[in-house]
Amino acid sequence: MTLVGAIEAGGTKFVCAVARNPADIRAETRFSTRSPGDTIKEAIDFFREYQYKSGETLMAIGIACFGPLDLNPKSQMFGYITTTPKPGWMNTDMVSPFFNEFGVPVAIDTDVNTAALGEYTWGSGVGIENLLYITVGTGIGGGAIINGSPVHGMIHPEMGHLRIPHNWQEDPFPGDCPFHGDCLEGLSAGPALQKRWKVPAQQLPPDHPAWDLEAHYLALALHNIICTISPGRIILGGGVMEQIHLFPRIQEKVKTYLNQYIKSSEIYDKISEYIVPPGLKNKAGVLGAVALAQRLIH
Amino acid sequence: MTLVGAIEAGGTKFVCAVARNPADIRAETRFSTRSPGDTIKEAIDFFREYQYKSGETLMAIGIACFGPLDLNPKSQMFGYITTTPKPGWMNTDMVSPFFNEFGVPVAIDTDVNTAALGEYTWGSGVGIENLLYITVGTGIGGGAIINGSPVHGMIHPEMGHLRIPHNWQEDPFPGDCPFHGDCLEGLSAGPALQKRWKVPAQQLPPDHPAWDLEAHYLALALHNIICTISPGRIILGGGVMEQIHLFPRIQEKVKTYLNQYIKSSEIYDKISEYIVPPGLKNKAGVLGAVALAQRLIH
Repeated sequence: MTLVGAIEAGGTKFVCAVARNPADIRAETRFSTRSPGDTIKEAIDFFREYQYKSGETLMAIGIACFGPLDLNPKSQMFGYITTTPKPGWMNTDMVSPFFNEFGVPVAIDTDVNTAALGEYTWGSGVGIENLLYITVGTGIGGGAIINGSPVHGMIHPEMGHLRIPHNWQEDPFPGDCPFHGDCLEGLSAGPALQKRWKVPAQQLPPDHPAWDLEAHYLALALHNIICTISPGRIILGGGVMEQIHLFPRIQEKVKTYLNQYIKSSEIYDKISEYIVPPGLKNKAGVLGAVALAQRLIH
Repeated sequence: MTLVGAIEAGGTKFVCAVARNPADIRAETRFSTRSPGDTIKEAIDFFREYQYKSGETLMAIGIACFGPLDLNPKSQMFGYITTTPKPGWMNTDMVSPFFNEFGVPVAIDTDVNTAALGEYTWGSGVGIENLLYITVGTGIGGGAIINGSPVHGMIHPEMGHLRIPHNWQEDPFPGDCPFHGDCLEGLSAGPALQKRWKVPAQQLPPDHPAWDLEAHYLALALHNIICTISPGRIILGGGVMEQIHLFPRIQEKVKTYLNQYIKSSEIYDKISEYIVPPGLKNKAGVLGAVALAQRLIH
């Protein structure tokens, strides 16, 4: 594989790397996300300095970007961050600055699609042609690989905003999604946990009822996504999923909720291999960006 | 296009056709579904008689089949109906009888995937590379085309069984899905309407509150599928959707529930072209089977 540049462009921080693959990362940096101009310049400077010092040339650049993004190749706004509430970042062209600077192909996809691609290429999803990656953290997002390619659809998926059953008697918390109230993200992203239980999620002990409720909502969402695209494996990442005791809870609840309707030994006999943590850990995004860039070449 | 055989194999009836495309249907028949042996024989006899009388040869056969099906090309049970509750049909090989008889390629897919393919090829979904087809009738099922190909995933989608919010105060009907109670199908397929309102669905007048509730549940399900795969168009077919007054209700509710979160002029400015009836009407299944067969050749 060729040497490429990779960017995980997040709303809080950027991670940049020069690599061929996970075993051959030549350089890496991270810095906080400021204005688009300053932040993109810092990424360009990092790649330029690497090329200057090493004498090597990056053959492509991959970008895993926060959204929403315009990913329609026919659109004049292809590669732009569109209607983000993040101050200063609305209508930011993420592709042209890198293409103009380095004159190499630049690929961009959502952070979650890219993480799914990273896991598919080198992580927990190798060989799984229909793969689902969900991140549960400050927000909830999902990326899917179908027949070996990331799904964009008309715009791109927004799996954090699924509508799921919410028993108001058992859980009177109204949800905090500014768009939908008690959608999946409104009920079960990190900030919702903090608001419902009045302490940061990571301070809740493993035997706190918060976690069974959390597993309940995530399992309902997985039930829905399984019924919609029938993924061959599900990878759950993000800060909240660092509570690894969530995995067996979610696994059992998915089996219970599907209730033998989906006849699959992967689900009923091998659930611990069906719903798994990211093999690339918190590097799924930036390594996915490496994979995205490699796909432009190979 | 070449002359092919097409079968829409339903739990109640089989529809068979010999055709090149919707404008060139040479022969068609329908008969009730009995035992697998008798029913498959009647289909074979129909095709054999056509070939004998016309002197023409079918070059491939496509089957749109009720499920669940094994569609894994690597499986020994590929092309079998698997765990259906329909008496006598469990573990029925749907492909070999036709392949053995006619010695031509035989393609099979779910009824809903095939209908989606029919609409994509000749109906309301031409040119829409990411297309969703949902049927609402005795049951609810969904088929998706992503990047121009039907989605199978690990098994195949079962979109009728999505879990959606259910307000028990407003709608105390518990749902009648034997697996999930108040999943989408349990709340809003034809039999659920009949059980909730004590009359057959088609006898409910358009101003009956049943229809607003029906549109509510279907819109919640579409919200979820839009958030999961971001289809470029949604086609709603099946007996219940023959109540065409449901379309504007569903269209408005989808816009309301998404609440401007998905930024798309297709949804907000052109919803009446985004959620539409099947262009092939009740022939989406059998014509989809024609398209499935044509794909084997072209």
